[in-house]
Amino acid sequence: MNKILIFGHRSPDTDAITSAITFSYLQNELGKDTEAVALGKPTDETQFALNYFDTKTPRVITTAAQETQEVMLVDHNESQQSVPDINKVKVLAVVDHHRIANFQTDNPLFYRAEPVGCTNTIIFKLYKENNVEIPKHIAGLMLSAIISDTLLLKSPTCTEEDVKAAEELAEIAGVEMETYGKELLKAGTDTSNKNASM
Amino acid sequence: MNKILIFGHRSPDTDAITSAITFSYLQNELGKDTEAVALGKPTDETQFALNYFDTKTPRVITTAAQETQEVMLVDHNESQQSVPDINKVKVLAVVDHHRIANFQTDNPLFYRAEPVGCTNTIIFKLYKENNVEIPKHIAGLMLSAIISDTLLLKSPTCTEEDVKAAEELAEIAGVEMETYGKELLKAGTDTSNKNASM
Ligand SMILES: [Mn+2]
Ligand SMILES: [Mn+2]
Ligand SMILES: [Mn+2]
Ligand SMILES: [Mn+2]
Repeated sequence: MNKILIFGHRSPDTDAITSAITFSYLQNELGKDTEAVALGKPTDETQFALNYFDTKTPRVITTAAQETQEVMLVDHNESQQSVPDINKVKVLAVVDHHRIANFQTDNPLFYRAEPVGCTNTIIFKLYKENNVEIPKHIAGLMLSAIISDTLLLKSPTCTEEDVKAAEELAEIAGVEMETYGKELLKAGTDTSNKNASM
Repeated sequence: MNKILIFGHRSPDTDAITSAITFSYLQNELGKDTEAVALGKPTDETQFALNYFDTKTPRVITTAAQETQEVMLVDHNESQQSVPDINKVKVLAVVDHHRIANFQTDNPLFYRAEPVGCTNTIIFKLYKENNVEIPKHIAGLMLSAIISDTLLLKSPTCTEEDVKAAEELAEIAGVEMETYGKELLKAGTDTSNKNASM
């Protein structure tokens, strides 16, 4: 049986890359055999977060069906934002904070969407619900995604739940949120290939 | 501002009717102004459960847009199973245990699907996550739906989570599961308009 692949959307932003990593860690703790991969290279902002929290950059895939039968999607659901052969694999789970469109399955699945500012805010709740401890580097990656998607908690999409999660995650990650957040966003401003969508 | 309407699928089974009632009670406890309605009359089985737990039969609607702008869907998501003018209203939330198809939104929403035997098993978890106490009659209706959808925990779709929920709910509802379950299913066998889908 092959590993279940977990990935975010094409032209990945920090939430897309890190939510694959943080959701994969959770799934593996719960007994599944999963691997976080990506549909593109990390931006400079994302790479800054990965380096800061000493995390391996996920490998980039261009097909899923050639190596697995089962996938989990994070930070997206629309097929045109997903792996090109998404219709050839079974989607076991989705965790997302976007509208639902161009998505369908043949079988019941786990789908968790909430109208919050960041996918990692939902994944943070899933750790709590499943009583799985959040390691320091995972907390740092989740925090980075929330900072990125909500522009340091200032975007109109930011909710109370994002703020609460970010505060708790900063503590676990051992960083001062404002200081780290400004460094992270600054690292992203140098890049030209940054994806505008969150 | 009009009430948010909550309803299950057309040709409603016990899960469709009761999950609207149990999810509406939860939403109201959380501060929303919602009403549970139905897309059809209850079957004899469902009416037995409503009578047993002293609960008003939800009124039947044939349109949503004429009285509200916002709805929540339970026990279904596909538009052809929903209210005919579903595309004229905003779907705020979905709680379901079926595949996802023919469903799309313009905005982010709350979507909670799990591959379990009954929508009420998921709603049971939502009460726990939100620390809302389950009243006796709500527990009885949830239990009735689980018994109905899983044929007294014997269907292939029944999961450990359904069993766990049913046991706890029987205790809150103050009924012996086997005895009550057989009475409930027997009440349903007299009807000719029972919907085969669960
Ligand atoms: Mn995101
Ligand atoms: Mn994103
Ligand atoms: Mn059902
Ligand atoms: Mn049903």
